[in-house]
Amino acid sequence: MRALVTGGAGFIGSHLVDELINAGYEVNVIDNLSSGDMALINHHMQNEKFSFINGDLTLIDDIMHATKDIDVVFHMAANPDIRLGTQITDTDLKQGTIATYNILESMRVNGVNKIVFASSSVVYGEDAPMPTPENHGPCLPISLYGASKLGSEGLITSWVGTFGFQAWIFRFANIIGERGTHGVIFDFIHKLKRDSSRLEVLGNGLQEKSYMEVKDCVRAMMHIFTNTKEPVNLFNLGSHDTCSVRRIAEIVVDETGYHDAAIEYTGGDRGWAGDIPKAMLSIEKMLSTGYDVNYNSEAAVRHTTKCLIEEIGL
Amino acid sequence: MRALVTGGAGFIGSHLVDELINAGYEVNVIDNLSSGDMALINHHMQNEKFSFINGDLTLIDDIMHATKDIDVVFHMAANPDIRLGTQITDTDLKQGTIATYNILESMRVNGVNKIVFASSSVVYGEDAPMPTPENHGPCLPISLYGASKLGSEGLITSWVGTFGFQAWIFRFANIIGERGTHGVIFDFIHKLKRDSSRLEVLGNGLQEKSYMEVKDCVRAMMHIFTNTKEPVNLFNLGSHDTCSVRRIAEIVVDETGYHDAAIEYTGGDRGWAGDIPKAMLSIEKMLSTGYDVNYNSEAAVRHTTKCLIEEIGL
Repeated sequence: MRALVTGGAGFIGSHLVDELINAGYEVNVIDNLSSGDMALINHHMQNEKFSFINGDLTLIDDIMHATKDIDVVFHMAANPDIRLGTQITDTDLKQGTIATYNILESMRVNGVNKIVFASSSVVYGEDAPMPTPENHGPCLPISLYGASKLGSEGLITSWVGTFGFQAWIFRFANIIGERGTHGVIFDFIHKLKRDSSRLEVLGNGLQEKSYMEVKDCVRAMMHIFTNTKEPVNLFNLGSHDTCSVRRIAEIVVDETGYHDAAIEYTGGDRGWAGDIPKAMLSIEKMLSTGYDVNYNSEAAVRHTTKCLIEEIGL
Repeated sequence: MRALVTGGAGFIGSHLVDELINAGYEVNVIDNLSSGDMALINHHMQNEKFSFINGDLTLIDDIMHATKDIDVVFHMAANPDIRLGTQITDTDLKQGTIATYNILESMRVNGVNKIVFASSSVVYGEDAPMPTPENHGPCLPISLYGASKLGSEGLITSWVGTFGFQAWIFRFANIIGERGTHGVIFDFIHKLKRDSSRLEVLGNGLQEKSYMEVKDCVRAMMHIFTNTKEPVNLFNLGSHDTCSVRRIAEIVVDETGYHDAAIEYTGGDRGWAGDIPKAMLSIEKMLSTGYDVNYNSEAAVRHTTKCLIEEIGL
């Protein structure tokens, strides 16, 4: 099997590449290195089963070439900064929805019809019951990032219905772990590195979300991709519980050793407009396939904190 | 109140314009006349409360100008030909999703924050329970048109969540009636006009959908827009029952008077890839606002057949 991984030099994408290589796949990566980093895939560059294309998914010519002679596309690329949509409104449209269109269209032209897509729990919006099952509706995303994920899901299922594609859509909880390049733990460590006397937390710290360790995430993807065969296979991926931002701040302060840092809250129920204060996915459907996670949310947070302190340095 | 109606020279849009003018609104229409027709709004051209802009929603400059000094945008414009997506894959993306982005962004820039959107029952896809309630999920559209409606819904709710917009989203059943420019009844009349000895029906004729008369539709929109005040107000609009394509063929043959026409079925469960064979929306939520329809599906079909025979001529 030859797989194309879009965003394969990024945080989750690079872990997926490791997993695919371990499973015996030939792997091509396309990444524009806007948030991805060659350092995350350099260990495969000498492997003859691996190749890298520096390409931009918003340019259909780049992706048209990359989808030739491929058996399955793992579409992981996206703008990873959800907050950016509050400032610049066309990034998620272009790098999300339109990029997904370009991929689907180039796959159709090249006769490739299996796609695995990294969607997100943020498609559900903020009024969903917790834990949120896959059949919750209507999906009312409140961030532009969430809109681009919902728009991409619809494009994918329409290529299934119209052109006979087969799809695996994964709605991710907050994925954290080694090689993380953004998110709350990453931000907290950088803030403490700059000023170890205080840690500013956006919101009141009562935001509470489900966290999934990145290796748990990519293993779940591979397990479900291998073991489900519907035209559309849609699964939440997450862990069994949640962790509050307040608790994350305590863990980061603890692990950095900056025990005198004052944790200060900016107030309000959320970090920014479009942030979802509380989120927890139902993972019953994932569990029913026989896959379970190794980390609960707090363990994933502590593990990630240790990894990122080592990567970032204090 | 000053309303902008996108696609206001189109089938449903022009009926909405009539309703808005009757209700005392000032109405601006923007339409590129690709499927719209000045004949449908000519009766308002002398009204000083009415104005028309020939503009293209895929060009943000056109829409940026049109959304100045507006209180509410009724976004009705779209490619009306669902089948087109099987041949040309970027029409719905550009005239659907990207046009909706352009509208939202120009509204944000111009300080306009109320949007009413014509979505569609096809966002649900083909495996939804019937009648389908608004909270059905996941939405798995099978047509590219459906994907563009789902993508637009997500964009709209993200502008609500991120920029404080207020939205009314209407998922339409099959809307039929006077001034129709496409759809099964329109096609059947044209086929019989060309050859009154036979009527070719795409599929086995057992496709069965809910039909709503267009004046019922725009009155329901106005009623719900006036009487609901949530940040996002999402409603199915449809009638109480369904009508089969087989029955529509019989009604059209009956009303045209071509009683000798042989009704011939091409076979298969659907008219084309991306067509949904059976669809019926739950309208409980609409009914709970106090609005009920004047026509059931079969009465709407017969009424529309009479209107379109008069408009098209035999």
